[in-house]
Formats: sequence, C-alpha cells, structure tokens
Amino acid sequence: MSGRYQPADAFRSPRFSGIRTFMRLPYVTDMTDVDFAVVGLPFDTATSFRTGARFGPEAIRAASALLRPYNPEQDVDIFAHLSGVDAGDLQLAPGDTEGTYALAEEGLGTLIDAGVFPVVLGGDHAITLAELRAHSARHGPLALVHLDAHGDTWHEYFGQRFYHGTTFRRAVEEGVIDPAASVQAGMRGSLYSPSDIGDARDMGFTVLSTLELLDLGPAAYGDLVRERVGDRPAYLTFDVDFCDPAYTPGTGTPEVGGPTSAQAQAFVRALTGLNLVGCDVVEVSPSYDSPGQPTALLAANIAWEIISLHALARARGAGS
Amino acid sequence: MSGRYQPADAFRSPRFSGIRTFMRLPYVTDMTDVDFAVVGLPFDTATSFRTGARFGPEAIRAASALLRPYNPEQDVDIFAHLSGVDAGDLQLAPGDTEGTYALAEEGLGTLIDAGVFPVVLGGDHAITLAELRAHSARHGPLALVHLDAHGDTWHEYFGQRFYHGTTFRRAVEEGVIDPAASVQAGMRGSLYSPSDIGDARDMGFTVLSTLELLDLGPAAYGDLVRERVGDRPAYLTFDVDFCDPAYTPGTGTPEVGGPTSAQAQAFVRALTGLNLVGCDVVEVSPSYDSPGQPTALLAANIAWEIISLHALARARGAGS
Amino acid sequence: MSGRYQPADAFRSPRFSGIRTFMRLPYVTDMTDVDFAVVGLPFDTATSFRTGARFGPEAIRAASALLRPYNPEQDVDIFAHLSGVDAGDLQLAPGDTEGTYALAEEGLGTLIDAGVFPVVLGGDHAITLAELRAHSARHGPLALVHLDAHGDTWHEYFGQRFYHGTTFRRAVEEGVIDPAASVQAGMRGSLYSPSDIGDARDMGFTVLSTLELLDLGPAAYGDLVRERVGDRPAYLTFDVDFCDPAYTPGTGTPEVGGPTSAQAQAFVRALTGLNLVGCDVVEVSPSYDSPGQPTALLAANIAWEIISLHALARARGAGS
Amino acid sequence: MSGRYQPADAFRSPRFSGIRTFMRLPYVTDMTDVDFAVVGLPFDTATSFRTGARFGPEAIRAASALLRPYNPEQDVDIFAHLSGVDAGDLQLAPGDTEGTYALAEEGLGTLIDAGVFPVVLGGDHAITLAELRAHSARHGPLALVHLDAHGDTWHEYFGQRFYHGTTFRRAVEEGVIDPAASVQAGMRGSLYSPSDIGDARDMGFTVLSTLELLDLGPAAYGDLVRERVGDRPAYLTFDVDFCDPAYTPGTGTPEVGGPTSAQAQAFVRALTGLNLVGCDVVEVSPSYDSPGQPTALLAANIAWEIISLHALARARGAGS
Amino acid sequence: MSGRYQPADAFRSPRFSGIRTFMRLPYVTDMTDVDFAVVGLPFDTATSFRTGARFGPEAIRAASALLRPYNPEQDVDIFAHLSGVDAGDLQLAPGDTEGTYALAEEGLGTLIDAGVFPVVLGGDHAITLAELRAHSARHGPLALVHLDAHGDTWHEYFGQRFYHGTTFRRAVEEGVIDPAASVQAGMRGSLYSPSDIGDARDMGFTVLSTLELLDLGPAAYGDLVRERVGDRPAYLTFDVDFCDPAYTPGTGTPEVGGPTSAQAQAFVRALTGLNLVGCDVVEVSPSYDSPGQPTALLAANIAWEIISLHALARARGAGS
Amino acid sequence: MSGRYQPADAFRSPRFSGIRTFMRLPYVTDMTDVDFAVVGLPFDTATSFRTGARFGPEAIRAASALLRPYNPEQDVDIFAHLSGVDAGDLQLAPGDTEGTYALAEEGLGTLIDAGVFPVVLGGDHAITLAELRAHSARHGPLALVHLDAHGDTWHEYFGQRFYHGTTFRRAVEEGVIDPAASVQAGMRGSLYSPSDIGDARDMGFTVLSTLELLDLGPAAYGDLVRERVGDRPAYLTFDVDFCDPAYTPGTGTPEVGGPTSAQAQAFVRALTGLNLVGCDVVEVSPSYDSPGQPTALLAANIAWEIISLHALARARGAGS
Repeated sequence: MSGRYQPADAFRSPRFSGIRTFMRLPYVTDMTDVDFAVVGLPFDTATSFRTGARFGPEAIRAASALLRPYNPEQDVDIFAHLSGVDAGDLQLAPGDTEGTYALAEEGLGTLIDAGVFPVVLGGDHAITLAELRAHSARHGPLALVHLDAHGDTWHEYFGQRFYHGTTFRRAVEEGVIDPAASVQAGMRGSLYSPSDIGDARDMGFTVLSTLELLDLGPAAYGDLVRERVGDRPAYLTFDVDFCDPAYTPGTGTPEVGGPTSAQAQAFVRALTGLNLVGCDVVEVSPSYDSPGQPTALLAANIAWEIISLHALARARGAGS
Repeated sequence: MSGRYQPADAFRSPRFSGIRTFMRLPYVTDMTDVDFAVVGLPFDTATSFRTGARFGPEAIRAASALLRPYNPEQDVDIFAHLSGVDAGDLQLAPGDTEGTYALAEEGLGTLIDAGVFPVVLGGDHAITLAELRAHSARHGPLALVHLDAHGDTWHEYFGQRFYHGTTFRRAVEEGVIDPAASVQAGMRGSLYSPSDIGDARDMGFTVLSTLELLDLGPAAYGDLVRERVGDRPAYLTFDVDFCDPAYTPGTGTPEVGGPTSAQAQAFVRALTGLNLVGCDVVEVSPSYDSPGQPTALLAANIAWEIISLHALARARGAGS
Repeated sequence: MSGRYQPADAFRSPRFSGIRTFMRLPYVTDMTDVDFAVVGLPFDTATSFRTGARFGPEAIRAASALLRPYNPEQDVDIFAHLSGVDAGDLQLAPGDTEGTYALAEEGLGTLIDAGVFPVVLGGDHAITLAELRAHSARHGPLALVHLDAHGDTWHEYFGQRFYHGTTFRRAVEEGVIDPAASVQAGMRGSLYSPSDIGDARDMGFTVLSTLELLDLGPAAYGDLVRERVGDRPAYLTFDVDFCDPAYTPGTGTPEVGGPTSAQAQAFVRALTGLNLVGCDVVEVSPSYDSPGQPTALLAANIAWEIISLHALARARGAGS
Repeated sequence: MSGRYQPADAFRSPRFSGIRTFMRLPYVTDMTDVDFAVVGLPFDTATSFRTGARFGPEAIRAASALLRPYNPEQDVDIFAHLSGVDAGDLQLAPGDTEGTYALAEEGLGTLIDAGVFPVVLGGDHAITLAELRAHSARHGPLALVHLDAHGDTWHEYFGQRFYHGTTFRRAVEEGVIDPAASVQAGMRGSLYSPSDIGDARDMGFTVLSTLELLDLGPAAYGDLVRERVGDRPAYLTFDVDFCDPAYTPGTGTPEVGGPTSAQAQAFVRALTGLNLVGCDVVEVSPSYDSPGQPTALLAANIAWEIISLHALARARGAGS
Repeated sequence: MSGRYQPADAFRSPRFSGIRTFMRLPYVTDMTDVDFAVVGLPFDTATSFRTGARFGPEAIRAASALLRPYNPEQDVDIFAHLSGVDAGDLQLAPGDTEGTYALAEEGLGTLIDAGVFPVVLGGDHAITLAELRAHSARHGPLALVHLDAHGDTWHEYFGQRFYHGTTFRRAVEEGVIDPAASVQAGMRGSLYSPSDIGDARDMGFTVLSTLELLDLGPAAYGDLVRERVGDRPAYLTFDVDFCDPAYTPGTGTPEVGGPTSAQAQAFVRALTGLNLVGCDVVEVSPSYDSPGQPTALLAANIAWEIISLHALARARGAGS
Repeated sequence: MSGRYQPADAFRSPRFSGIRTFMRLPYVTDMTDVDFAVVGLPFDTATSFRTGARFGPEAIRAASALLRPYNPEQDVDIFAHLSGVDAGDLQLAPGDTEGTYALAEEGLGTLIDAGVFPVVLGGDHAITLAELRAHSARHGPLALVHLDAHGDTWHEYFGQRFYHGTTFRRAVEEGVIDPAASVQAGMRGSLYSPSDIGDARDMGFTVLSTLELLDLGPAAYGDLVRERVGDRPAYLTFDVDFCDPAYTPGTGTPEVGGPTSAQAQAFVRALTGLNLVGCDVVEVSPSYDSPGQPTALLAANIAWEIISLHALARARGAGS
C-alpha cells in the first residue's frame, strides 16, 4: 500500500510548475501519517571561504523537480513504502551559530519525536552538529557515515569553537557520535599538516582518502561501513564537495581531484542494511553553481538515494 | 484591521528561508478570507524567439522574498487592507496553447468567483487571452491597460492563431476587451511594417510609443488612462520587455531603448483610481537573466505595485 | 581525390572568422556533388522541462569552428572521401509539432532523394520521429541506434501524442523502426515506474542502462549493435543528456551519474561497419550551458565522429 | 521598388532559425545589385584591457535576428530603398595589426569600388584606421563622426604605433580624416592627464564629453555635426563603450557614468543629412556580456539605425 | 610636487598585469609618506539576504585596474597632490561581528594615527560602525554622509544588535555620529512600516528618498550636505545598492528603481568642501555580479571619486 | 628548518582576505632567501581561438587562496623545505610576441641567476618559448615534459612564426630543447592532418595521445619520462586544455574527451626524480570559466603539485 503523501503527478501538472518543494511533495507541517520529511536549514554563517549556502535548500528544491519516484538501480518504488512531505525550513538565527543550533535541535526534535525520518538540506556543514545532537538525544551516540573532501575535525576558527570545519571534533567531544563506529571517506586536497587527518584517526575514526575510497570500491566500502557501524543508529552526512568541482562547482571549499557523480551515487547506494536515523546533504552554494545548476541536481539526487535507502529498509522490514 | 493572511515575519524567519511563495505569503488554496491571490501560469509554448518563461513564476517568487509590506511611495500598508496568499500555479497543458487556455480559464474562474483579485505571474504573453476571457465572462468587455514594448496585435504565426504576438487582436475579435477604452504604451523597436502599430490604432486602441509615453510622463499617462477607461472593469498587463534590457535582460524578445525600472514603477503607480479586476506580469525568462536576477526582481516589484494599487482602492473604498 | 566542398582553410581565415556554419563548411543548398549535409532543426516545443533547444543548431555551429578534418582515432581524413556542406536549417512551424513534422519530412526528403547523408542538429528529441519517417519512407523500417539517458517511450503528455518523450513508442507504432534490430543505451536516473524501461523491452528493444553499457565497454557494445542491426539501414540518434551534466550541462532534462565525453566518443567510434542512412544530435539547450559552451562543443564533436564513421564507410566501400 | 536582397521572412522561417547572418540577410559575396553589405572584421590583437572582440561579429549577427525591416522612429522601410546582404568577414591576420590593415583595406576596397555601402562589425577599434584608409583613398579626407567613451588619440602603446587607443591620432597624421570637420562625443572616465582630451582639441577635433553631449541633446548634436561636416564624405564610428556598462557590459574598457541605449539611439538618429560613406560598430566582447547578450543587441540596433540613415538618404535622394 | 607612491605606469606595465592592488598602487604597509591608504575589510557575516561581500575587496581591486590618475570632471590629478597606497586588508574574525569590530578599530586606528586618509572597501555595511568608532575616538562625533537604498536603522536582527541593518542606529546610540549633522539619501523600496524611515528622522537624521534626492539634484544636494555638516569631521559611506540593480546587480539586497551610475557619480562629486576624515564603499557581492563585473567597476569608480575629493581638498588647502 | 617566506596563516587572516598572491605568499621582489618564486606572464596575443589568458594569472592567484602547505599524497610539507614568494608579473609587451619574449627572457633570467625555481603562470602557450630560452641559456638544451591536448608543433600562423601553436617546433629549431629527451602527452582531438603528430615524432619527440597516456597510467608514464629525460635539466609545461572541458572549461582551444582533474594530478605527481629547472601552467582564460572558476582552481593545484615535486627533490637532496 502506498503512502498518504506522494509527489504531484507529472502527467497532471508539469514538473516545472507549482510551488517548489522537494520532489514536488506536498508542503505539510503536521507530521501525522508522515514517514519522511525533507527540511531545509539555510544557515551559512560558519563557512571559511565561499559563502551562500543559505540558498542551498532553494536550489536543491528547484532541481529536485526532475526526480521521479522509482529508483531502478535499487529497484525500489519509494512511495510504495513511504509517505513523504516537504516540511519547509527549520527555524534559525542567521549570524548566530549557537543560537541556530538551539533552534534547529528543537525543530528537528519535533520531527524525530513524531517518528519521522528527517532529510535535511543545508546550509553549511556546521549544521550537522545540531542534527547529531537532536538524534543522539533520542538514540544515544551515533555511528557517523561521512562522505566529504574534508574531515571537519579542526580545533577552532578565529576563536569560535563552532564552524563548518570543527563539526566532527565537537561531535566526538560532546559524545554524540562514536568515532570507533564511524567512517569518514573522500578526504583529499592540500592540508595544513599531516595532523589534519591524523587527528581524526587518533580520535578513532576510520578515515579513507578519495584515492583509498576509489581503490576500495562501492561494495567493499559498504561492507566496511556495515562492519564498523553494526546495528547502531547511524547518521549519514554528505557534503557536495565530496565530488570533483566538475560535478559540484557550486560549493564553498571545492577540491579538485574528486569522484564523479556516478561514483558518489554508487557509494551511497552501497549503504544498504544500516539503521539510518537521519541524514543531510550540505554545502550547496548556488551563486557559484554553473548555469545548469549541476550541483543542486547532484544534491537532490543524493537526497533521493538516501530516501531510497530508507524505503528499502522499510520494504525489507516488517512491512508498512 | 489587518488581513488574515500576511507574509511570514522576516524578523522571525529570515527572508532567505522557507518554501518560495510570492512575498513569503502562505501557500493556501482555499479562498476563504482571501482578498488577493498570486498564481503562476508557467506556459511558454507560444514564444517567437527566446523561450523559457515557464520558469518565470519560480524566479519571480524567489526574488519576491525581498518585498516588504509597506509601500512608501503610495503610503499604503498592503496587509492593513488585504489578506493575500500564494495559490500556487494554475493547471496548464504544455505544448498546447488552446488546451492551456481552457484549463487556465477554469482555474482562474474559480478564483474570480470567490471574489479574489488574482495576480498572475507568467509565462508568455499568450496567457493573457485566457485571463481576459475569464474576467470578461464575469464582468463584460474589459478596458485593457497594457505596458509592453510590443502591441501583440499580429495576425497569426505559422498557421497558429494563438501565440504571444496575437493576444490582443484575438481579444478584440472575441470581444473580451473594448479597444476604445484601452491604452497600449511602451511600443518601440523595429517593426515589420507601419501597420504593426497602425492596425492597433485602426482597431481603436490608444497606442503610445516609448518615446511618446516618456514625453507624456506618469501623471498625464495616469490621467489619459483614467479618461479612456472610466469606471469600466479594467485589466492591467505588464510585459517585462517594457523596460530596457539593461533592467530586464531575462525576457524573450528584448528591445533596446526602453524605460528604466524607476520609470516603470512610476507609470504603474500612476494607475490609481481604476476599477482593476485582474492583472498579470509576463515574459520573465530566467535562463537569460543576469546572475543577480534583476528581471525577476523587477517583475516581483511590479506585481507588488499592482497589489498596492489594489490595497489603495480598498483603503479608499467602503473600508475592509 | 578529395571532395568538392571542404571546410574553410584555418590558415587562410582564422577559425573564429566567417559566417557560422558547421565546421566552417560552405553554406550550400544545391545538393549537386554533396555527400553529406549538416542541417539544423531548431524545434523545441515538445520539451518537458527546460526548453531552449531552438538555439541548439546556432550553438553547435559556433562550437564546431574548432573541428579539424582529420580524425586521428579513426585514422580518417573526412574530406579525402566526402564532400560536405552546411545546408542551413530545415523549415519548421514553432509551436506546432505535427506541422513541423510535415515540413521536416519534406525538407529532409529532398536531401535524401539527392543521395545526401543528412546530419541533423536539434532541436528537441521529438524531431527524430520526422527524420525516421523520412528515411523509412525510402529505406523501409530502420534499425535504431540510440544513445540517451532516457528511452523516450512514454505514452503521451498532456493529451499530446507527439513530444520529446514519446518519439520511439510512436516510431514503433508507425513501423518506421524495427525494435528487434534496435539498441537503446545509456538509460539512467529516476523513473516513474519499472515499466518505463520494461515497456521498451516488451516492444522488442534491446535496452542497456548506463551502468550496463559501461560494464560492456565500447568494443562489445559495437559488436552487440552490429549483431542486432545487421545490414539493415540504420539510424543513429544521440541525445546529449547521454553524458553526465558535468560534460553536457546545457540540456533540458539532465541526469547525473552519466558517462564522460571520452566514453561518449568511444561508444560512437565503436559503431563502425553499419549501414548508417541518417543521424542526429539533439537536446542542446545553450542558455543552460556553461560559459565555455562545453555542451555545444561535445555535440559538435559527436556529429563529427558520425561524419567520420560515414567517411570510413565510404573509404572502405567501392571508393569515392 | 524594393531591393533584390532582403531579410528572410520571419513568418516563413522563424527568427531563431537559419545560418546566422546580420538581420537574416542573404549571405552573398557577389556585389551585383547590392546597396549595402554588412561585413565582420574579427580582429582584437590591439586591445589594452579585456580582449575577445574577435567574437563580436558572431554575437552581433546572432542578436540581429531580432531586427525587423521598418524603423518607426525614422519612418523608413529599409528594404523599400535598399538591397542588403551579409558578405561574411573580411580577411585578417590575427596577431598582426599592420598585416590585418593591408588585408582589410583590400577587402573593403573591393566593396567600395562596387558602389556598396559597407557596414563593418568589429573587432576592436584599431580596425577603423584600415577602413578610414580604404574610404579616403577613394573619397579624400573624411569627416569623422565618433561616438565613444575614449578619444583614442594616444601616442603609442608598448612601442606599437597601431593599437585601439591610437587610431585617430594616426588617422590625422595620415591625412585620412580632417579633424576640423570631425566630432568626437561621449568621452568620459578617468584619464592619464588633461592632455588626453586636450591633444585631440589641439589636433582640431571638436570634442564633447558625455556630460557635454547629454546637455546638448540629440537635435543640437545633429546640427553641430552637420555644421562641422558639411557635405564632406563622412565616416561614422560607434564604440559600444559609448554607453554605460549597464547597457553594454560586454566590452573591453568599460567606463561607468555613460548614456543609456535610448540616448545612443537618439544621437545616432539625429545624424540625418550627412554624406555617410562608411561606418562601423566596434568593441563588442561577448565573453564579458551578460547572459541575455544586451551588448550585442545594442550593437545590432546601432548598425540598423545607421543602415536606416542610409535608407533615408537614398529615399530623399534621386530615388532608387 | 607629486606624491611618493603612485600607480604603476600603464605604458610600462599593462593594466591587466601585476598583483591586484587598488588602482595598481604599491602594496605598502609602512605608512610613512602616505596620504591615503586603501584597505579592504572582507567581512560579511552580518547580511540579511544575499551574502558574499567578503569577496568585495578582491573584485573592486581587480576592476580598479582600469582607473587612471586624472579626474576630468573635477579637474584634479590625484597624485599631483597625494601619495597613495594599497595597505591590504584589515584583520577580521569571520563569523564574529563584535570580534571583527575590535580588530578593525585597532587596524584602522593605526592608519588614522599615522595621519593617513583611509578608504575602506567592504564587506557588508555592518563594518561601518567599526570605522565610525575609530574615527570618532580621534575626532569626536562625526557628520555622516550616507548614500544607500536603506537607512540601516533597524533595531536588531534575530537577537543580534550588530548586523548590516542596524549600523546607524547603533552609531547614534554610541554617540559616534551626530544625526543632526547627518544626511541619509537614496532610500527607496518596500519597507516593513513607515517607521523604517520615520525612526531615522526622529533620531535627527535628514533623510532623502531616491525620488527626493533626484528631484533635488546634485548641486542642491551638495549645498544641503554642506549646510548640515558644516566644518565637522565628516564620514562618507556609499552602499552600492544606492544604484539600480541594472548598474550594481552584485549586491546583497538590491532595490529596483534606483539612480544610474552617472547620477551616483554626480552626487559624490557634489560633496566638495567637506572635512572628510574617512569613507567606505560597501556591499559589493561579486558572485551575484554580471560577467563584466559592473558592480565592482562602479564601486572602484566611487572610491576614486572620493579620493579625488580628498585630492581637491588638499589642492585647495595649504599645499602638499 | 622551514623557509623564510611562507603563506599567510589561515587561522590568523582568513583565506579570503588580503592582496591576492599565489597561495597567499608574501609579495617579494628581492630574491634573497627565496627558493621558488611564482610569477605571472599575462600575455595572450598569440592565441588562435578564444583569447583572454592575460587574466589567467589573476584568476589562478585568486583560486590559489584555497591551497594549504601540506601535500598528503606526496607526504611533503612544502615550506619545511622551501621558502617561496609571489614575485608579481614579468614585464611584457601586449600585442608584440617577440618584444614580450625579450622582456620575459630578461625578467626570468634574473630569477634564474638568483638560484630561484620559477613557477610561471600564463598567459598563452607562446610564452613557454621565452622560458625555454632563458633556462637553456643557463643549463643547455632542456628535456621537455609536456602535458597538453595539442603538440604545438605547427609551422606558422598567418605569416607569424611565433604563436601558441608553434612553440615547440621553434624550440627544437632553436636548440633550446632536446626532442629525444622530451615527452609530449595528452594529445587528442581533431587534427588538420596526420602530420600534426607525425611531424613531432619525426622531430624526435616521444608523443602519447590521451588514450595512450591513460592506457599507460601514471606510474609507467613517470618511468617513461624518467627514462627519456635522465638527469638532464628538465622543463615541465602544463596546458590546462590537457583536461577535459568539464574540468577546465576556461581555456582557449578546449578538446572534449580529455582526462579528469584526478588523472592530471596523478600524472604530475608521477614526475618525481627529475631535475626540474622550471615550469609553467598556461592557457587559463577566465572569461570562459564557469562561475565557480574550476579551471583556475585546477591550474593553481597543478602549480602546487609542481612546487611539491620541487620540495620533494629538495627534501631528498643534501638537506635544506
């Protein structure tokens, strides 16, 4: 039986029409009968180079109009298993990272408490700490599954402890993730020193550079993650700078030498069998995107792949 | 007393957040307690040069996030007098002009019958015929107030009677507008022959070229229009190519030598005292707009000026 | 002996000079002594998302100024074997799909009857049906060699039977192609349902997804196509959304996760040994292309690879 | 009686179709029955800041597809009086200014000797010297009518006597123009020293800054030019940086504070009653233009206004 | 006698060469023999809509390469009177408005104490408070000369007292400016309520809307400012959204209906005879600028006009 | 012990601040204590298609702000071994290729004589001849290590012997490189004739097409180069059109079907163990780059990889 909330029918209203919601889902804020909710968190105060990720949710929603409900690679029809909505944007306080954290934790908590799987569209990577806090407050320490060109485990930035480059160091310090159950993959590019990655390993993370990840391949990567994560509650965070700037030029700190969009899809598709409790796709900065908006399109597709993982999990579970 | 529906408060949710509706108004489809409704009509099959106006409503909505409720030049606080919503997009049939007309007439009719003032965001100029039909079916022949670089009174186009260059010839033929009560202003640029404008005059339109309009000035233009229109039900249509491409580059058939945005605002602001029953802003083609999206911003502002006219009329009427 | 018509000499007039024709070929409409003719068909009424492919031929011609006559990978000097021209654009009726089909069939028929190999630059994918009709009227049912992210075998679209997503279902229904001799390759991305691809297989097409095609590789793909097609008259259609949007961002319905430009070239180069009677390259939408116009450049190169295939066939035939 | 060569009929082939020639005129190189010929001269070696004007003719031709034959402000139907063609590009030697001069003088001479009025699309402003030489070789010293933000009367540039900033000093030195009969107008922006303009006045030019020109107004400007020029053979050169970068961003050395497109049109339209023997529109650099290509559109319109002046002269002459 | 530090000679090193400093001035941090110093302050944490002004100084410096030393409208050769340098960027703390204020006050104080006239390139308008503090600490309360579409006298923003919309309310509260001696001009666009401007008037500011300013004209505006300011130390702040988005699209909160670049220049040029102690040009957000970077070019020209005012003052003073 | 000159500390001044030098290195022109110096050579007179590489150094410097000092793939901390500066741009004569050669040879000679390793940022590929002359004057004939889509061994261009397509033929003729010790790799795309590559082989170059290079792989490529080069003084030149236009769209003569950025990095990283005496990265043409400036970012990264090779060589040498 299909879910209550589904995308608008593209053969009744064309995909370029209507208020822009993610995947043309109904804009609904009452979480009754909702399995997953897409929400934006347009916060970008905490970026270190190019900014503008506050317009990320708008751009991802616009590009997501191209998404259809059936995922052929995973052989899953999302809305046969799930009811999904776009719940708009979480409240935030621009210019105030910790104020935004408080608002986002509260907003997200409401969704989680309603049993909804939240799919968050960033915003810069600082926002993930708020999400990790909200989820771990309910599930305990999380296993982090992290795809990104940067480990984001720096110490601080101009006296600020919270910005998009310190998120996962803070998350370990706060105990909201368990590094021993966590895998960071995709790291590449110039570093300040070897400790940029060494520190993460010392904290207990499994860290794979882009080259190591590509050598491993999607299937082995999936196995490695499942081995590390086990049945812990897991959180998947995808920074679009994981891909090469040829694929995702519209982001704040691009690093050349990255994976393709097809590789990004394959690594995400490999993450079946986890107990995902939440996820985000972050760092889309539309004013740096190319005219065809490929970065936003990639981000929309990655969110859709994660929703497909959730649908698969539901399909393989006790029914729905 | 202020209206039921108002824009989201920019000091509680920042203007760059939330689902993109016009002016951050609630997305509402039940017309109870609604005074005006903004609706998109993303149809662009009927364009003769650059296409892409199907993404016009999306772009105008995005740019309209910058609009605030008080109009200082008209000294009117819109929502002190009006309750307004974004009602999404009207149904349409891409690739099928007449099919779209039927759907749009029906969709718009529902709004009109509910006593709502509809503000339509195009789409190409072909859509205005559907709107004129819907309004005249309820009010009788309309006075047309038309700001545009082109008169759109050509005969036909590749065997098709309905496209964006024939709209007002068809409207006269169908009797949905009264040319003797109608004023076209802003015409300029190269023509196929003198008859391009002569025909419109022969049909009974008052036609002002850009140079004639600028010589006249806003106040005298307002007087002229009020004299022609009288107390007839009037329809205001604004094609963004009225302005010079320096101001509105994102449009299908730009003509250099046009008015500035300030002049466009002044001419629209001069149109007080009319019995406006409907309006549209058309021909925004975002893929040709500059990165800062000035065309969409101008279009959003013009729609807002027209809503201000409506608020003024309500303020001066028997209360609200 | 080299052909009568060849590109302008880049060492006598620089490649950035002159009227933009494909590959700087002479603009000639008399088909005497012409082996191949490049023609544009700038029709885009029938698109379901981003439009603007009417400017595809202009952009491809502009980018094609970079093409030189010798193909080193195929070791063939095109104009040692062929005389080629740019014959301008076919007549069309914008806004009228079936009217355009009639005009295009007639225009193309003239070329075919003159013994010319036509290379058509789109325009959206709806135009291919007109081309298939024109060729099959002279050669009987064709073997279709189709490289695209989409199978374009949907049923209809807003009541219209002819648009860019139904082309190959119509072609089968009309008997202008033989699905049993036809291979669709490159399909990927979200679908409405499994039947989107299942239907094509049920009709008799061989269908390869992007992942299946990449696993197969160019050589085996060439073998598979030759096995299916045999010595039937074959038609090659290349939709630029076959490639990833990193390579071809300027298109109407991009799908991430696609092949590279190098892979696209390799698959086309593998198609030696066929009896090609016609071809097209479609769906270049320049207003969404990146500033460097990579999509148009890729399209120009693919057309040039197909012309190279034709030159190879001629070279291997009874001489020229 | 109308001329032999006219633009393609926009109601038989849409304006976005066909090989890009100026104004959709036939591409003809035999000058029989030709009154005016548009030719490109895509040379940009001699620019001092942003380069890329070699793609100016391509862009102007593309934008000129929007031009129609009747000029309502001048009340003249161009092709009732003139037969016009696009003759392609003149030969040139990229990287070699003097080599290009020799080729352009020869190519242009052929047109002039055939009694054709040449309309040259640049290229950078260095090319005008070659044109002035070609015309004065046949007509004697010319009166220069010059609309530009810069006087281009500097001495030399890095040891080179010929570049886009020395054109009119060289022209005076060579005796191909008569400065006493010449008017430079539109000068503005920062200078190296007062002598930048003082020198031109010392050479005998009448020089009007942008502010002086705007104070004067079109009618008085026309009178001033007619008074200075008299019945001498006159040459009109229009550098698109005459306009403000809001109107013509796509140029090599933009200067803020310039006239609007409407003002540019008005000043050109005021130049009736001259004995124009040649003209050019230069310095369109498309890679710096905005996506809607307003600079190319303005340039195409200015060329069309000059052609209108020629048609008016013919209409008022002994017939045609 | 001309100053020690001058721009690089454009006839010895072309204007497109060299490390990008403002106006190709030497990059010097020792303030000996320096009359004016251009410094960047790339802070943009405090913006309410589009962000990215952190790249404003980079873009303004790049565009300023086009500036030459002589100002013909003011008849002043800047470096005959002044020695000028680019001193790089002030220190800042991204993401921390108050931390940045402390750093900027200190950095700027060093310049002021060295007797240097600082020309600050923003950054968003929040930075002006730091500048006002630094100057008033040395000169007492300042007269503010403010050209902007917004008065920036809001109360607070999401709990933050310091952001780009509260700058001048805070400045009054802190006593660093004297509103009775201050003139705000250029205000326009939609407001939250009449109090948006009324508050500023209540605080004592003279406030001119765009329409009022344009009615007044440059000369009378200059008189009005001189009358209000008298011989007080004055600070000139120019927000590029003062101009219409046709002229300055690359800014964070554009308002249509604004002045042209020529008008902006004229109003700044009218500000002779003041005792200017400091200035800034703010809110250039390059990722929203058009490809030709007109916003950065306008900003560079405005900074140059202010430097010209300073040179004029020096020229008219006791010599140099 | 680390070098005297190092990049600015990104935790004290953010990476988006400060005068744009390469990698935020000090701008220093005194070569005392300098190991490597980055210099621009913004010359683009000698290009055959798209021009604009004169702005290449500016763009590469801007993008290089993202570079950090530690190279994890090579495990080398650059500034532990080297002291590096940005020395600004070499002198040049725009429009005069041979004049520029003379100036560049002199400027570069000064650096070389000071024992500095110069890293040159182009400019078009013509400039490499000047560099080869300067180095070989001191070291004798060089081994050329050339990564490019084009061999640049054409004969001449419009009568000019020096332009960006003849550089390496001239270099062989002048004896500044030893073709037998030289490897050209990456060649692809359409050619004028087989001799385009055959000539280079006849001259003695080892030439690898893109497909041959990719088949070989980085390790074997490194071995091949080391075998050919031996211990000769070697020069590495990287033309950004080596990569596919998806990665480097901002270049003058793009060729589709090229390597990825990751492959480009891998081939450069494989070049350890050479006696590199100089290098350049050329043909970045920013006005054709995508908004996110991926081409400039790739170029900056390649220059950084070459500097890393130099640091590795120093690290493995007799200390530093």
